[in-house]
Amino acid sequence: METTLEAAAPLSEAELARLDAYWRAANYLTVGQIYLLDNPLLREPLRPEHIKPRLLGHWGTSPGLSLLYAHLNRVIVARDLNAIYVTGPGHGGPAIVANTWLEGTYSELYPSVSRDESGMARLFRQFSFPGGIPSHVAPEVPGSIHEGGELGYSLMHAYGAAFDNPDLLVACVIGDGEAETGPLATSWLSNVFLNPARDGAVLPILHLNGYKIANPTVLDRIPRDDLLALMRGYGYQPYLVEGDDPATVHQLLAATLDRALDEIAAIQRHARTTGDTTRPRWPMIILRTPKGWTGPTTVDGQQVEGTFRAHQVPLAAVRDNPAHLAELEAWLRSYRPEELFDATGAPVAELTALPPTGQARMSANPHANGGVVLRDLVLPDFRDYAVEVDQPGASTSEAARVLGGWVRDVIKANPDRFRLFGPDEVASNRLGAAFEVTDRAFLGARYDGDDHLSPDGRVMEVLSEHLCQGWLEGYLLTGRHGIFTSYEAFIHIVDAMLNQHAKWLKVTRHIPWRRPVASLNYLLSSHVWRQDHNGFSHQDPGFIDHVVNKKAEVVRVYLPPDANTLLSTMDHCLRSRHYINVVVAGKQDAPNWLSMDDAVLHCRRGLGIWDWASTDNGQEPDVVLACAGDVPTLETLAAADLLRQHLPELKVRVVNVVDLMRLQPESEHPHGLADSQFDTVFTTDKPIIFAYHGYPWLIHRLTYRRTNHRNLHVRGYKEEGTTTTPFDMVMLNDLDRFHLVIDVIDRVPGLNTRAAHLRQAMVDARQRCRDHTRSHGEDAPEITEWHWPQT
Amino acid sequence: METTLEAAAPLSEAELARLDAYWRAANYLTVGQIYLLDNPLLREPLRPEHIKPRLLGHWGTSPGLSLLYAHLNRVIVARDLNAIYVTGPGHGGPAIVANTWLEGTYSELYPSVSRDESGMARLFRQFSFPGGIPSHVAPEVPGSIHEGGELGYSLMHAYGAAFDNPDLLVACVIGDGEAETGPLATSWLSNVFLNPARDGAVLPILHLNGYKIANPTVLDRIPRDDLLALMRGYGYQPYLVEGDDPATVHQLLAATLDRALDEIAAIQRHARTTGDTTRPRWPMIILRTPKGWTGPTTVDGQQVEGTFRAHQVPLAAVRDNPAHLAELEAWLRSYRPEELFDATGAPVAELTALPPTGQARMSANPHANGGVVLRDLVLPDFRDYAVEVDQPGASTSEAARVLGGWVRDVIKANPDRFRLFGPDEVASNRLGAAFEVTDRAFLGARYDGDDHLSPDGRVMEVLSEHLCQGWLEGYLLTGRHGIFTSYEAFIHIVDAMLNQHAKWLKVTRHIPWRRPVASLNYLLSSHVWRQDHNGFSHQDPGFIDHVVNKKAEVVRVYLPPDANTLLSTMDHCLRSRHYINVVVAGKQDAPNWLSMDDAVLHCRRGLGIWDWASTDNGQEPDVVLACAGDVPTLETLAAADLLRQHLPELKVRVVNVVDLMRLQPESEHPHGLADSQFDTVFTTDKPIIFAYHGYPWLIHRLTYRRTNHRNLHVRGYKEEGTTTTPFDMVMLNDLDRFHLVIDVIDRVPGLNTRAAHLRQAMVDARQRCRDHTRSHGEDAPEITEWHWPQT
Repeated sequence: METTLEAAAPLSEAELARLDAYWRAANYLTVGQIYLLDNPLLREPLRPEHIKPRLLGHWGTSPGLSLLYAHLNRVIVARDLNAIYVTGPGHGGPAIVANTWLEGTYSELYPSVSRDESGMARLFRQFSFPGGIPSHVAPEVPGSIHEGGELGYSLMHAYGAAFDNPDLLVACVIGDGEAETGPLATSWLSNVFLNPARDGAVLPILHLNGYKIANPTVLDRIPRDDLLALMRGYGYQPYLVEGDDPATVHQLLAATLDRALDEIAAIQRHARTTGDTTRPRWPMIILRTPKGWTGPTTVDGQQVEGTFRAHQVPLAAVRDNPAHLAELEAWLRSYRPEELFDATGAPVAELTALPPTGQARMSANPHANGGVVLRDLVLPDFRDYAVEVDQPGASTSEAARVLGGWVRDVIKANPDRFRLFGPDEVASNRLGAAFEVTDRAFLGARYDGDDHLSPDGRVMEVLSEHLCQGWLEGYLLTGRHGIFTSYEAFIHIVDAMLNQHAKWLKVTRHIPWRRPVASLNYLLSSHVWRQDHNGFSHQDPGFIDHVVNKKAEVVRVYLPPDANTLLSTMDHCLRSRHYINVVVAGKQDAPNWLSMDDAVLHCRRGLGIWDWASTDNGQEPDVVLACAGDVPTLETLAAADLLRQHLPELKVRVVNVVDLMRLQPESEHPHGLADSQFDTVFTTDKPIIFAYHGYPWLIHRLTYRRTNHRNLHVRGYKEEGTTTTPFDMVMLNDLDRFHLVIDVIDRVPGLNTRAAHLRQAMVDARQRCRDHTRSHGEDAPEITEWHWPQT
Repeated sequence: METTLEAAAPLSEAELARLDAYWRAANYLTVGQIYLLDNPLLREPLRPEHIKPRLLGHWGTSPGLSLLYAHLNRVIVARDLNAIYVTGPGHGGPAIVANTWLEGTYSELYPSVSRDESGMARLFRQFSFPGGIPSHVAPEVPGSIHEGGELGYSLMHAYGAAFDNPDLLVACVIGDGEAETGPLATSWLSNVFLNPARDGAVLPILHLNGYKIANPTVLDRIPRDDLLALMRGYGYQPYLVEGDDPATVHQLLAATLDRALDEIAAIQRHARTTGDTTRPRWPMIILRTPKGWTGPTTVDGQQVEGTFRAHQVPLAAVRDNPAHLAELEAWLRSYRPEELFDATGAPVAELTALPPTGQARMSANPHANGGVVLRDLVLPDFRDYAVEVDQPGASTSEAARVLGGWVRDVIKANPDRFRLFGPDEVASNRLGAAFEVTDRAFLGARYDGDDHLSPDGRVMEVLSEHLCQGWLEGYLLTGRHGIFTSYEAFIHIVDAMLNQHAKWLKVTRHIPWRRPVASLNYLLSSHVWRQDHNGFSHQDPGFIDHVVNKKAEVVRVYLPPDANTLLSTMDHCLRSRHYINVVVAGKQDAPNWLSMDDAVLHCRRGLGIWDWASTDNGQEPDVVLACAGDVPTLETLAAADLLRQHLPELKVRVVNVVDLMRLQPESEHPHGLADSQFDTVFTTDKPIIFAYHGYPWLIHRLTYRRTNHRNLHVRGYKEEGTTTTPFDMVMLNDLDRFHLVIDVIDRVPGLNTRAAHLRQAMVDARQRCRDHTRSHGEDAPEITEWHWPQT
């Protein structure tokens, strides 16, 4: 099949001229943003004081981005498309801003940046200027769902946006620098998960401009046949558009876009009329044009256009070097601004007639402002899925499996707006009930014996946390809902992506026209304490620490201790907006502690005293046993039970924490408990033994301003472990019931000799358990019967 | 070119029989490890008490790993190869352990696990058993440089091992699950950076066994032609080995290995005799065999062999279900152990004759125990690169650029054992002096105008932090040295990889036969305070927090405040062993504070009082101004200077911290300062205003046990920022000199009205700076002259 359409020339001369003018206008506005403080229309000769004192911004990628934007505008109008634009080379902020200004959207959302000379002056001045706008494609840019910062995530965002959006076309420009990243490299095969009948289309456009900051790009320097083979290998039909003569490239790109869109339409028509959802061969485009195209060819005798020297600001000394200033003026005038803008500074009618209007503009497409199209989930009442709890600890459940029943019905009730994402771990994480109502989305070959695979599946499984995260982000940012379930240890893979999403959420909270989107919900259900199959290489509960570094206004961390609290927590998370919710919960069989009524109350409070496990009778206790997380809660309750039996005179208060953010001062986090309440619960002077799920210092960090912090003693994961039994894991980290009892005895003053005997018994019990495990290969906790008074 | 060698049958009947016997022995030992507590040679019928109480381990991938291991043994002997084996499907631990036991290496290193019946019993029992060994290819496994935990890094480790090892062959098995990860997907093109003359060879073997935990793999379900196109696109010559009949597969695999090794030899011969280092088309192998091959075909009526059900333990209820027990026994006996092991339980002579001997065994190859072959770096005296400092703050340098001169000479002095890794940021991070003596390694097409590219370059640049990290890990673990330089914000991309490497270092410290390797050195030189080009999307100093969660015995964090301290710090890091060193230092022009003599002393102490900036004259101060990081140090010194001028009676002590770990108690970290020393420096009751580079709570976490923690007030990065000027960034986060003065005034009791006036002046100064920046687009700090007494 041909990969270049050299002979085709679909554009009339008038169309060609208009497209080229539009492109020149965008380029002019791009250069203006990078350089100009004033004199936006060059009504007078350029002088040093018209130039910004600090020149920031990226020119190199911008002409290519604007070329594609203009051509997409043509086909949107011609074909009445519903399209958005994902800018992989996100540093090309000025190009995208320029296009949205030309379309009018920018001025509609930011009226002071009007589509006239004064607005153009503001447009230029504000760019990468203090108090203005960032240099990259930031959340402030209309039409963007993709922050231009860290590279690698454009194509996965594009696919996420296309899922369940059958009428949407997502044009995704991928820089050849970005293409070297791992996350991007694995994104190509997202087409194995895209259903042509149910989902929209992604048109990947690999922009080979050849250079990064200082290096050539790899994909530009492998043989062309290899590059085409690579794209075919990924399942695409590649089309090459190459050149440096604008008129030629315009014709070739127009013809290629027409071909690609014809193919996409044919693919969708076929799938939707015949029901045949065999994985099609989607088209993709390789655009090879010079870096910094139409900019200065050489500067100070060195080649700039087409090289890495065009990456950022090609003329660097414009304020001080008259020759550079003159070159800048010539460069700007080469776009013939007098033909592009009228006397008021507005784009001439020929230009404004090119792009679509209203919501058909890529910058005004509501899908790119997901909160606008967001519809609430239909949520079955989670209380209906409760486990019965007559007596705390009398029965057990796999909390994640109980949740699975509810998640199944959430999927069923929301067939167009909810998906579950996971790296091949949905069943392993005990959410397999989902497969009673849906399948795993998959368009690769399917064989007998495969387990719940179909093109129509709503569970997205691929062995890449990056893809799960990126697809979900794209899905959320276009107004849908989801859960990402992963092993706790591996979720660090997306630390950097989490950063960028958290920053997006933080910034967009303060952009009035951006509407809140659904929260990004993590369910981490194979956690550090239950790595039975794996061992030390997998153990890390530090994702929570990473998340807590983000702005308090966007992050929430929950550690529900049992099945009913998990149900209540997840219901809350799926109703919430514009947060990152991290929920850590066990998938193994573990005691149920709270009835559903108690669970709802406990989750609402976020933390609370468990009277039934305490022996302080509402008075000031001798010691507080606090806990957060399912395994620490079990050990704490077992410790409390041991103390109740063996030191009945000791007044023990048991406090469980579901919402970790309650521990922070209210000045630091909106969920933070008032100091007076904190003091009431945790006392002001009694020892607190805190059994925590993760790294213990996080609890110190959250509570160091609290009155009683000096008496806080935290047990948690301290990087000790290997492949062993679950109880041995808690012993290795001194989080076990016996050690907690020892901690109490060591810290409560004035205990009697019976306490000393109990302490020795605890030391002995630890040794017996250790020995038993080493010799028998199984747990030997001396599990107590629960001795709670009847509740 | 043909991709399958169906007709070839290079093995004689005897060779075939021996290879197959060897493979059966490895499979037998694998199943034994997963299941058996006792009766290792099946001398009596299998009974429930012979079975482990908890069945853990991964069978599915194991037969394929052992098949490849046996065949590689054949060619190592036949061709006298120097080879190591990287196990991408790292869960196949029992297979690799089995092979190292068959080779004898295991028993040499672990004498109690002897090559006889009692040793075999220990081998079986210890596997995935408390007190025993992990189920994956852990650091305990001889011959491994690659932890079998998180997937994605095998191929980059393999390339890292091959760099500068011209005689080494790195056979790298890549699971088709792992192949879905981003890091693996971008690893294929590592061949663009491998020099056939200077470097060794990597033989990638993609093992398509078709399934993950519950899903088919993507690469197994795309059309075969696409898969072949993909591999050609990545620049390889792919060879397919497919089948499920052992004899057929043995012949085909042997022929294919011969072909691939012939091609590798030809490539290397050509490059080394002609000097032509054009990027060759390296061979790679696709092995498609059933998952769980030779295991139970069906269990309880469900297909197991060749499906995801063979992933872990195919027969799960062996202890309780007599039918399962019988099936297990039949499965074990199907390998005919009586032919494989003699009366003592040792492998029969036919088997032990197959693998190579001594260091030629992949499990005993010294390259896989890098500390053994590690040679110290030749380090030029860093003092020779010092900047002159007569007066603190009187001159400025770009610290990273000063370092660059020394790094250049380190590269020059170590042409065979040191490389610099960075994601296209080496020049941007001001280490460009390296290019005076070397180039960027690159074997793609090269054009005029490219900047320092050559096949011989020792700077490894690719736009993938994953690849930089993975290559460097592979390079270090095989006994060489390196530095990874990156932007601070983007280094979170490798958080998860850092985890795994830190765990490797922690565990190997306690494995006697493992020798220490060179430290993994990070230089983060575009840090959170100087993101002028980028803005909020890039700002994150949290990598330090992530690193500090790891075991104290393996992590170090340094924040040198100027050029000379950076030189001293990096020299220390390059001499150190078996650590992760994180160094954060500026690349922008900034004041020099310390002469080289003072810098060496200060770095040796790790933290210290800067008398020349203090006004406490060796007495108890009124306030301590502490700082860590170049920008916080500048602001702190400016604040001290303002206080000296305007409140000369106030006794201010300035403390600078280079080695962050000094802040921790000595019980928590080997670098921790004794409490008495800490109290001497920081006082026990005076206010401490601590200006810190990163998230402020880390300082609280490190110091919460110190006497004076209650008076500690930390300023740092609090997630505020956008594209603005450097000084505006510090103001946005309240870390600026003016705010530090305000903090002092607000916290030191009993100050006079002059202090109140100064406070107002500081508030006004902040506003003036803010206004100036907003209106002029440039910094307007009211920089003071330094008022230090002459030193």
